[in-house]
Amino acid sequence: MQVAIYFFICVDLSLALFEEPALFPLPFLATSLAEVLCLMAFFGRLVHFAKVTPQMVFWKDTKNICIMVTIVLTLIDLIICGSLEAVNIHSVRWSRALRPVFLINFPESRQIRRTFRSIRNTLPDILYVFLLFMFSVLIFSLMALKLFGDRGLKTVEGLPYFTNILDIVFELYVLVTTANSPDVMMPAYNFNWWYSLYFITYIIINTYIFMSVFLAVVYNNYRKHLKNEIRKLAYLKRHKMIEAFNILKVQVGTEFVVMEAQWRRLAKVVAPHISSPHLELLLRISDEGQKGHVDKVNFLRLPDLLNIQVVTINVKRHPLEDWMPRVYQSSASLLVQRIVRHRIFVWVYDVIILINAIFIALDEKNPFISHAEWLFLSLYIIEILLKLYTYEPRAYFGRKQFWNCQQILDIVLILRILRLLRIIVSIQRFRVIVTTLINIGPTILTFGGLVLVVYYVFAIIGMEAFRGKVRFSDPNFTSPDALVCGNPALKDSAFARDRYCKNNFNDLASSFIVLMELTVVNQWLTHSLAFILEAFFVAYSLEKSEVETAIEKKIQELGVGIQEEEMQDGKLIDNVDAKDSGFSGDDGDNKRKDLKGLYFRIASKKYRTVDALLQQMFESEIAPEEEGPSLDEILNFSPGDMYPKNPNFENSA
Amino acid sequence: MQVAIYFFICVDLSLALFEEPALFPLPFLATSLAEVLCLMAFFGRLVHFAKVTPQMVFWKDTKNICIMVTIVLTLIDLIICGSLEAVNIHSVRWSRALRPVFLINFPESRQIRRTFRSIRNTLPDILYVFLLFMFSVLIFSLMALKLFGDRGLKTVEGLPYFTNILDIVFELYVLVTTANSPDVMMPAYNFNWWYSLYFITYIIINTYIFMSVFLAVVYNNYRKHLKNEIRKLAYLKRHKMIEAFNILKVQVGTEFVVMEAQWRRLAKVVAPHISSPHLELLLRISDEGQKGHVDKVNFLRLPDLLNIQVVTINVKRHPLEDWMPRVYQSSASLLVQRIVRHRIFVWVYDVIILINAIFIALDEKNPFISHAEWLFLSLYIIEILLKLYTYEPRAYFGRKQFWNCQQILDIVLILRILRLLRIIVSIQRFRVIVTTLINIGPTILTFGGLVLVVYYVFAIIGMEAFRGKVRFSDPNFTSPDALVCGNPALKDSAFARDRYCKNNFNDLASSFIVLMELTVVNQWLTHSLAFILEAFFVAYSLEKSEVETAIEKKIQELGVGIQEEEMQDGKLIDNVDAKDSGFSGDDGDNKRKDLKGLYFRIASKKYRTVDALLQQMFESEIAPEEEGPSLDEILNFSPGDMYPKNPNFENSA
Repeated sequence: MQVAIYFFICVDLSLALFEEPALFPLPFLATSLAEVLCLMAFFGRLVHFAKVTPQMVFWKDTKNICIMVTIVLTLIDLIICGSLEAVNIHSVRWSRALRPVFLINFPESRQIRRTFRSIRNTLPDILYVFLLFMFSVLIFSLMALKLFGDRGLKTVEGLPYFTNILDIVFELYVLVTTANSPDVMMPAYNFNWWYSLYFITYIIINTYIFMSVFLAVVYNNYRKHLKNEIRKLAYLKRHKMIEAFNILKVQVGTEFVVMEAQWRRLAKVVAPHISSPHLELLLRISDEGQKGHVDKVNFLRLPDLLNIQVVTINVKRHPLEDWMPRVYQSSASLLVQRIVRHRIFVWVYDVIILINAIFIALDEKNPFISHAEWLFLSLYIIEILLKLYTYEPRAYFGRKQFWNCQQILDIVLILRILRLLRIIVSIQRFRVIVTTLINIGPTILTFGGLVLVVYYVFAIIGMEAFRGKVRFSDPNFTSPDALVCGNPALKDSAFARDRYCKNNFNDLASSFIVLMELTVVNQWLTHSLAFILEAFFVAYSLEKSEVETAIEKKIQELGVGIQEEEMQDGKLIDNVDAKDSGFSGDDGDNKRKDLKGLYFRIASKKYRTVDALLQQMFESEIAPEEEGPSLDEILNFSPGDMYPKNPNFENSA
Repeated sequence: MQVAIYFFICVDLSLALFEEPALFPLPFLATSLAEVLCLMAFFGRLVHFAKVTPQMVFWKDTKNICIMVTIVLTLIDLIICGSLEAVNIHSVRWSRALRPVFLINFPESRQIRRTFRSIRNTLPDILYVFLLFMFSVLIFSLMALKLFGDRGLKTVEGLPYFTNILDIVFELYVLVTTANSPDVMMPAYNFNWWYSLYFITYIIINTYIFMSVFLAVVYNNYRKHLKNEIRKLAYLKRHKMIEAFNILKVQVGTEFVVMEAQWRRLAKVVAPHISSPHLELLLRISDEGQKGHVDKVNFLRLPDLLNIQVVTINVKRHPLEDWMPRVYQSSASLLVQRIVRHRIFVWVYDVIILINAIFIALDEKNPFISHAEWLFLSLYIIEILLKLYTYEPRAYFGRKQFWNCQQILDIVLILRILRLLRIIVSIQRFRVIVTTLINIGPTILTFGGLVLVVYYVFAIIGMEAFRGKVRFSDPNFTSPDALVCGNPALKDSAFARDRYCKNNFNDLASSFIVLMELTVVNQWLTHSLAFILEAFFVAYSLEKSEVETAIEKKIQELGVGIQEEEMQDGKLIDNVDAKDSGFSGDDGDNKRKDLKGLYFRIASKKYRTVDALLQQMFESEIAPEEEGPSLDEILNFSPGDMYPKNPNFENSA
């Protein structure tokens, strides 16, 4: 169902590729039929909703109203355009700009809606800074008019310099983005040295200080709303768990508890795929004294315990060891394994990759270099074979062993340059940065969805307004027509001179590129990336203060834990193999052996999301006995009233 | 003494203006004599230091060693250059780049040194991100070489496109600053639409994500070190106060206390200029029960109490009321006063200023407009006269009443446009932003000093290396020589075409401008302005959670407090005058009258510095009884070990 809806949304949005002005033209009838089909699918989904939700709730939800209104508007627009098209009159298909409404308003796009809401909440604060900023630009423009307007200065193009207030405002606004620096200053600076002070002052105030203030406001608001959402979630969870406890509780002695059997059944219902050793582990954590029941504080912790990914590892021997133990355990074989496991082996290959990179940068025409390429390829294959010989294959290519898989891809990939990435992996500090970047991947995707929505609306409007204004005919710019981008009005313009003809609104793809270029030059986007900042603040504060959970402690206590570091580069396997074959030290081995090759491992801390971390930090501040506010209060939390109530909830940054 | 040293530092630094290549040429002998004089002054200061500090301490201080080495090096350089000059050989005066050493190393520039230290501490973290960033640029460059190198593409100038790896690295680096976007993309984009994806990916990763990571690292480090310094200060203060308490304490009953007389004498010694009503106020806060002695907890608070600026206000009648009470209290006069005090009066003048602004933007040649200017001027004079008539003059122009004084300046100032600033003042939200900007003024100055030091060194090096390469002869660009900036090598270059001739290293002032332009285009500076971010985070968090101090509570309790809001726009005076003349309400008046026109006011919270606020927040988390770590431990605090110890000390953002 969800997949189908997403499919129809994609189809609906991509229709713009086939409608006039089209990248791949299709007749009007075909695209309209496809659109009607999509609309029917959306309507069907809506009807389904209306059936499963109470009528009151359904009609109160603005999302549903939005979708319905958009469907109706699109149909009206289709009918009008269709009838006009029949008599060969071209009209504006304005309803196309409404298509992203479907993407935003279906319940599956909760993330995008949340981001939209958070932007809307930030707007009032932004607005004040923006007004002040515009005010400052205006005052500077007036000053510029008085200072430079009467001097008869000329720009490089020979036009009058700073004589019109609107031109000045525009030029000064562009100066904030530094796009026309220092050109905008040069005429005044050439006239008199002292005028440069005016521009320096302007840049300090408007480019540096105001842009920082923008960032501060955006980040501050983002953080406030993020924390509020997380607080809501944490209290909601607590609320639900207390309800559950009150249903399941029985009195033992003076206190209320949940019996072990009940607890087991609950856990099995909530997490049916949990393995029984994992469940035993959780029970041993919750029922510390093995009294046969779980008390309230420990019961409330159940969702956190279930949320922690515990990897159950079956440590196995290398297959070769089973097939031909004599050969694999021979001193020559052991020497090979020891070499492969050594740090220097990794370093040697890092150097090889670096040399390879230099070769790639050199001229490939040279026959010597293209031969060298084969040498490198065989070296990489040898490396992988050696590693397969040394490490247990399934552990080597196991989940989360991303970097190892990448090694195999190296050979297959045409982009051999990606091999260089391996050097990054070998430096610990780099890994922190890279894994944080990977963590914020989903957030970047959400943000990307948002940008897509905005671009789509503007692209549709741009195409209706500007299509065909620029015609791109000759990619080699040899015909005289290409020199004016097919439009005589562009003769001698900087646009044609710089060969910008392809920056046009003639189809959806070109429109997107133009909008992207405008975003880049204007640099506003940089100041909206508050989520990247937050992710890094959390990552850095985690580096300092290890948040150890009860489950991790227990695993270590029971001696069935394996440090995450041991897992990397297959060292765990190394370690365990070595011990099993009784050839390394024997300290602490006995405990492990009791479990017959069964090990637990907490999934890497580095792979936890920012949200999860913040939630954990916040929960550690709610006292275990605290019941929290009532459900209504929780749902109406506003970011504003958080500060006095929870002054300590700012630990994260 | 301090002033003299700063004078000599200024003279020494500004010598670069008069030395070859000079803005105002002076003979070599004159500048060398001035420099020797400065060096002697610095040496004298150093000798004085050596006398007042123990020898061990003096010689251990790297600052002193630095200054001495620099003096010696400068003298050597002077002698060499002087003797070469005598035989007319020009040599490089390299020691000039060392001059900022004096600015940094004298104890008076503690702030600049602290900033330098904090930058040095941030460097290792920055370095890792920078390496990763360079790595990413390199990988993308190699990919670009493979993708575009063999296609025979040409740039707009007809040069080969992306064929040389070094060119590619440079172009892609510039793309991060967005300075050559979209030009660098156009040849590939014109060739094939899909190549634009390469550039989009590059911009997302390197411009958006990496720049955010840079900012995150810089801000995180800044914050860490700021907090550490503040923690150090807070504990040091606590330590000293406990020592003081132990000296002064006497036993009363079961507890140790400081007697009132002792407390008074101490306060008088520490703050000799404190007024006696202020001292009484502090005593009433410290000795809550009026028992004649101050206990330990309250004693430890003494420095905080003394640090809070309390303004003692003598409420006076309007002079006119004394001179001619009948006229001033007549109903016509009261009506005028009421009108002037009314909100609408302010609004009317805001509108007048706006209309004035529009007139300024219009053509001034028009005789009607220049006459209107006189009309506006008289309106402003009338406003000031009316306000002087209504409000008590000394309060109106009193300290902190910055905005009122500005009003007077309006008329005098040639920059009449600054009048527009008054509109900002009338909106409360704008005030928060503006006052925060004013608060960070000192920090901006420190940062400016730092930038000056860096620019100075680079300017000196640049002048030695590039002086005379560009000759600027004709500001109107009419002579053929001007078209190549006086250097035939620049024929047909973009540099000459854009009339950049004045961007050169021919004198100190021009060098500074060039360096500034390079900074702006490269945009790195934006990402270093972490202190602006911090100031705004503190300002915004303050808006939410009012940090009320004991002293404020006491003032309110005693009924001698005046809200800061009442002070603004002279409303306080309004209020008080009105009450004194018995013409407004009478609630709570009696208490005030007992004090015979003496009122206290806490200096505006908005004017507190970020440092002071953070310190206050941190101190509120040290338990009153806590002795804190030992002195040695305090001095060796490192930012790293703060997190686990004081998890709550992150409230500020």
